[in-house]
Amino acid sequence: MPIALHNDCFLRACLRQPTPHTPVWLMRQAGRYLPEYRATREKAGNSFMGLATNVQYATEVTLQPLERFPLDAAILFSDILTVPDAMGLGLSFGVGEGPRLAHPLRDEAAVAALQVPDLDRLRYVFDAVRSIRAALAGRVPLIGFAGSPWTLACYMVEGGSSADYRLVKSMLYGRPDLMHRILDINAQAVTTYLNAQVEAGAQALMVFDSWGGVLADGAFQRFSLEYTRRVVAGLRREHDGQRVPVIVFTKGGGLWLKEIAGCGADVVGLDWTVDLGHARAAVGDRVALQGNLDPMALFAPPEVVAREAVAVLERFGPPQRAGGGVDGHIFNLGHGINQHSPPDHVAALVEAVHRHSRLQRMPA
Amino acid sequence: MPIALHNDCFLRACLRQPTPHTPVWLMRQAGRYLPEYRATREKAGNSFMGLATNVQYATEVTLQPLERFPLDAAILFSDILTVPDAMGLGLSFGVGEGPRLAHPLRDEAAVAALQVPDLDRLRYVFDAVRSIRAALAGRVPLIGFAGSPWTLACYMVEGGSSADYRLVKSMLYGRPDLMHRILDINAQAVTTYLNAQVEAGAQALMVFDSWGGVLADGAFQRFSLEYTRRVVAGLRREHDGQRVPVIVFTKGGGLWLKEIAGCGADVVGLDWTVDLGHARAAVGDRVALQGNLDPMALFAPPEVVAREAVAVLERFGPPQRAGGGVDGHIFNLGHGINQHSPPDHVAALVEAVHRHSRLQRMPA
Repeated sequence: MPIALHNDCFLRACLRQPTPHTPVWLMRQAGRYLPEYRATREKAGNSFMGLATNVQYATEVTLQPLERFPLDAAILFSDILTVPDAMGLGLSFGVGEGPRLAHPLRDEAAVAALQVPDLDRLRYVFDAVRSIRAALAGRVPLIGFAGSPWTLACYMVEGGSSADYRLVKSMLYGRPDLMHRILDINAQAVTTYLNAQVEAGAQALMVFDSWGGVLADGAFQRFSLEYTRRVVAGLRREHDGQRVPVIVFTKGGGLWLKEIAGCGADVVGLDWTVDLGHARAAVGDRVALQGNLDPMALFAPPEVVAREAVAVLERFGPPQRAGGGVDGHIFNLGHGINQHSPPDHVAALVEAVHRHSRLQRMPA
Repeated sequence: MPIALHNDCFLRACLRQPTPHTPVWLMRQAGRYLPEYRATREKAGNSFMGLATNVQYATEVTLQPLERFPLDAAILFSDILTVPDAMGLGLSFGVGEGPRLAHPLRDEAAVAALQVPDLDRLRYVFDAVRSIRAALAGRVPLIGFAGSPWTLACYMVEGGSSADYRLVKSMLYGRPDLMHRILDINAQAVTTYLNAQVEAGAQALMVFDSWGGVLADGAFQRFSLEYTRRVVAGLRREHDGQRVPVIVFTKGGGLWLKEIAGCGADVVGLDWTVDLGHARAAVGDRVALQGNLDPMALFAPPEVVAREAVAVLERFGPPQRAGGGVDGHIFNLGHGINQHSPPDHVAALVEAVHRHSRLQRMPA
């Protein structure tokens, strides 16, 4: 028998149901901008994977932002590259560097050898989900996540971050057969991985298509969105009698919003380049929307942060606009929070979202 | 009395006049992917500024791609950061690195001291324009260019390239007054600089808003587009009895296409994320469109490069589409050509654009 949620605003907003305020959480909310996170990481040998693979540490850092700020959701502390790591590609994080994969997919033989990983190699993730759910004790829902098949493929071919995606796009344009094989395997792996997170206790799921926006129109639909759609179609959408909402976030995907909204997800995440009002008009009541403050707005003084938060809320649903209710919006940044963000500015942001969105719901 | 142009396809397309084929040129067409460029750069002490400030070298490298490929336009060999350099910010290019500005604008005093530069400090650019015009001898038109006020401001505040634009956006959100002062000065400087290029012989102008796309909706309009609009409004649009078309290119600006199309430019440049057919439907006959092949498509085999080029041409103007003529399109990449691009693939691209666009113009 699951523990009842004390705060189900986030889940209700995902399903476009009325809520007393607009729920807010932040991508990468458990992270380096928090001194307590840096302290735990220190204990874990200053290693990202040391944190992510240790159930106790992963639980600790997942809950840290909730102790500081009245956020409406928690998100599993992990990384999208756990899946390629489980495939044997050898993940590491150099100090002060981005992720590296020791065995990138650079030729036909490597692609042919790729297989859906044994979920047993990802047991530490599911253990963390169970532990975090227990520690949350119903405070807020827990979001599980994975990278999109395309975004994982970018790392798997490039071997790390890239400025121009030359290697992965060379394969896409020159050997689309190899690219489709990688994406097919990734889609199967991500689907199984996310379903196991639900089984372990994740109450919502998010697919991060962080690099979908680097693709050309046409290529995005065939090489990114199609495989995200397959993932979403294969997900368990109910667990313990509760609907498990799915969020799809394509950074730089604003031009394809209508198509993304048709991929089967309950929520579409938006970056800061998108006008939330236009986005809402474009998707109607098909999906809820998540976003979309520029993470760099957090470097302004707290009163400006609050003003920018209000502007986002008003853009989504000014009470005075015809048909412009305020439900079906999850407030978030348009990308992960920057490691240099001042925590007290985050406090100002969360406070402003809650305060103003309650005002928006008061009868005129 | 100016020499008559042998090939005016590019200028005619900018003004949406009929042409026998779709003109094509490539952003950064005079560059490191060409062995002859690397040889000239070697002669200039392997220094970018050594090339750009030497009239003979700048002329030589500007013409190099035209010797190889039947391109329909030349573009001045220079860099957008000549303007901040002339403002005293101290430009340098480290070997294998991006540009650096030695004196970035990081405080109120630095912003207060900023001034529109003396054009005399940019005389080497105007000398190069004159020299290139003479060397071209009417083969194809010469495009002059500058960075947009916002894009220059990014470099001027960050001091170089940036992954997250944290410093410049901190100023934008936190001290918009300082940001507006920088942008105002940049707009004046860019306007004067471009007009002097026209005076020296540039037959078209392009404004590169390379980083407009990193801005939030709303901020883009106020901090980038508004200042580009001011620049365009201040440009000489006729010289020697010829119309001087203006191209505005905002990388990542697809969501704001209609607004950009209203900024006064003759042509809007598009990156590869935009559907050219949708773009054309959105802007109607207000502007011509330039673009938009993914530069990474050049890494596919030549026959795939040709097929991708045909797809772009068909997207713009399939003859069978109602109202879908083929004029008003300038073929280009959606961003600068990558330094590792194989020159023979570029040859295949240019050939395919010319061949297929001639076919498109034949009566059914």
